[in-house]
Amino acid sequence: MNVFLRGRVRHYRTVTFDAARNEVRLIEQRRLPHRFQIAAMPDFRATARAIAQMIVRGAGAIGATAAYGLAQGARAFRGGDPARFSAHVHFVYQTLQAARPTAVDPVNAMNAVLRAMRAGSTVAEQQALALAAAEEFAGEDVRHCAAIGRHGEKLIRPGANILTHCNAGWLAFVDIGSATAPLYAAQKAGKKFHVYCGETRPRCQGATLTAWELAGQKISHQIISDNAAGHLMQRGEIDLVIVGADRVLGRTGEVANKIGTYTKAVLAARHRLPFYVAIPLSTLDWNLRSGRAIPIEERDEAEVLGAWGVAAGRKAPVYVRIANPSSGARNPGFDVTPPELITGLITPEGIFRPGALWQNRRRLGHPG
Amino acid sequence: MNVFLRGRVRHYRTVTFDAARNEVRLIEQRRLPHRFQIAAMPDFRATARAIAQMIVRGAGAIGATAAYGLAQGARAFRGGDPARFSAHVHFVYQTLQAARPTAVDPVNAMNAVLRAMRAGSTVAEQQALALAAAEEFAGEDVRHCAAIGRHGEKLIRPGANILTHCNAGWLAFVDIGSATAPLYAAQKAGKKFHVYCGETRPRCQGATLTAWELAGQKISHQIISDNAAGHLMQRGEIDLVIVGADRVLGRTGEVANKIGTYTKAVLAARHRLPFYVAIPLSTLDWNLRSGRAIPIEERDEAEVLGAWGVAAGRKAPVYVRIANPSSGARNPGFDVTPPELITGLITPEGIFRPGALWQNRRRLGHPG
Repeated sequence: MNVFLRGRVRHYRTVTFDAARNEVRLIEQRRLPHRFQIAAMPDFRATARAIAQMIVRGAGAIGATAAYGLAQGARAFRGGDPARFSAHVHFVYQTLQAARPTAVDPVNAMNAVLRAMRAGSTVAEQQALALAAAEEFAGEDVRHCAAIGRHGEKLIRPGANILTHCNAGWLAFVDIGSATAPLYAAQKAGKKFHVYCGETRPRCQGATLTAWELAGQKISHQIISDNAAGHLMQRGEIDLVIVGADRVLGRTGEVANKIGTYTKAVLAARHRLPFYVAIPLSTLDWNLRSGRAIPIEERDEAEVLGAWGVAAGRKAPVYVRIANPSSGARNPGFDVTPPELITGLITPEGIFRPGALWQNRRRLGHPG
Repeated sequence: MNVFLRGRVRHYRTVTFDAARNEVRLIEQRRLPHRFQIAAMPDFRATARAIAQMIVRGAGAIGATAAYGLAQGARAFRGGDPARFSAHVHFVYQTLQAARPTAVDPVNAMNAVLRAMRAGSTVAEQQALALAAAEEFAGEDVRHCAAIGRHGEKLIRPGANILTHCNAGWLAFVDIGSATAPLYAAQKAGKKFHVYCGETRPRCQGATLTAWELAGQKISHQIISDNAAGHLMQRGEIDLVIVGADRVLGRTGEVANKIGTYTKAVLAARHRLPFYVAIPLSTLDWNLRSGRAIPIEERDEAEVLGAWGVAAGRKAPVYVRIANPSSGARNPGFDVTPPELITGLITPEGIFRPGALWQNRRRLGHPG
């Protein structure tokens, strides 16, 4: 999507591959929104470190990064011995997987690359197929997000005020994003609307990443504290809520997403406002039978006790302690929203009520 | 209440008067929770500045500060001419009122002092009566908070997990506080319980002031992001919500309080949790007929776009910009909670359902 740099607009993807240099190129997300920078990963080890150190984050983005990293590692192999090549590729795979061991997207992405490589007989052929498969994986991520946008765009009436939470934007994917896709599509369709970015304490991805994305697209937006959403709904200043998700249970329609999502859904239901969750198919979990089985990560209390920001006259963000020095914090990272609070799931295959996921499971990529 | 300083516990009030030095002494609240400091105001002009500059804040606290400030100004008068003394007192009154022109508590407090002074005939008598009346006003604030505590304490079962929002603690009054009064009384009664302090973005009074208060009292507590309350309720980890209020409509039972209060009330209702609002009688507004008539102050967007905190290795808090540099914010400071979401109002006169305020208006201080 667009990045606004020194008065000029340029187009970027979150992850790209430079075939001539055999480099994975990433937007350095830890510096955003205060500085925009492209980080070039010269080898697969650096690419794995970029995943581990959160230079890149978001399901779609780390999936594509791992796919490119595997191709990068395969292409760096010198020689023609298929057995040694296979052992090398296996090592690259494990290195990239270990960078974010709990994430499922890098594994799915790299498996797709490995499957494609089987069609080649020589090392050179397999190297070429690996890169083609990684490019295909990244391209598919973009097409899926574009399809989410086509379906979701219809929900946005001209003049609408839309509330978002956290960042499920193009920075979390290769491009376009999930929760942001309907916004970008509505803008393309010439609609005017206004977005309230919930700041999303404790890590403030709404105030930093989503606001940065919308500013780059020149979409009308304002940041609000997480506390203000209820008041704005009460005053009729919000018409629609769109969020992303970390995991959606295909069997129940329950949605696990960034802490605070549940609260927004409860408020939307009270005010009879539509509450939509935009997801690629890879977010659907067809195994779990109850949202209570979803592990809720308890994160570092320092996130709640302080914040990262830039002091006046400085450039680099620093961590500041906000809270009383002798107090501690609880910091659950995610919550689970029950299906009765969700109007619909915006997927690349169309919009589905949460109760209709299971009956449409073939279309929605259920493997069985 | 207690302040924990260098390993020792000492007792303080938010506002006191040093009669020998004719000084108003205040806890310097802008430095909290990072530094504890008493600021001595040598004359009524300094006392007025302390109100204007938020060295002292909170309805009860600024009321008592204004009462002491009026006595301080009256006592500084040299001479015996009653007419000149009266003009001087009038000037002091106006100076203190102008320090926070929208607040009603300083006016009520100073009017009480003026009424008491009428019983004196000489300047010296009136000066003595002014100080006695100011002391009486401060003492009444403390007695009222203690009564709130006696009534509210019964709501706290041993082992309870209690959610609070913002700070309606002893720092906002002369001592004890309103929303905190039931906690301090329950502790005195030997009950064990745990408090979740909602951090209360954007100004984080829960993470700073309430957490600091509870730490001084050695009450078990943790700070949570405002986003986490819904999740904790869902998991059965909150039993009771107690908040303060800026204004309660005696005719309707609507509660205006810090932004985010409404959200907590909506969540509590969904989870069938009791939601109580603790207030002194001075918070009751008997005139307004609808919560929609309550003006909601739109505050400086910088509050939402950043935060105040202390960087590692530093002592003084600094403001840091969290949000995307080119984005703006909405910042409504308060919201209005409708009576159907409120279990009861804890007052010095007992606990009342919001719909029962009007029929009990005589007891609750209705002037008519």
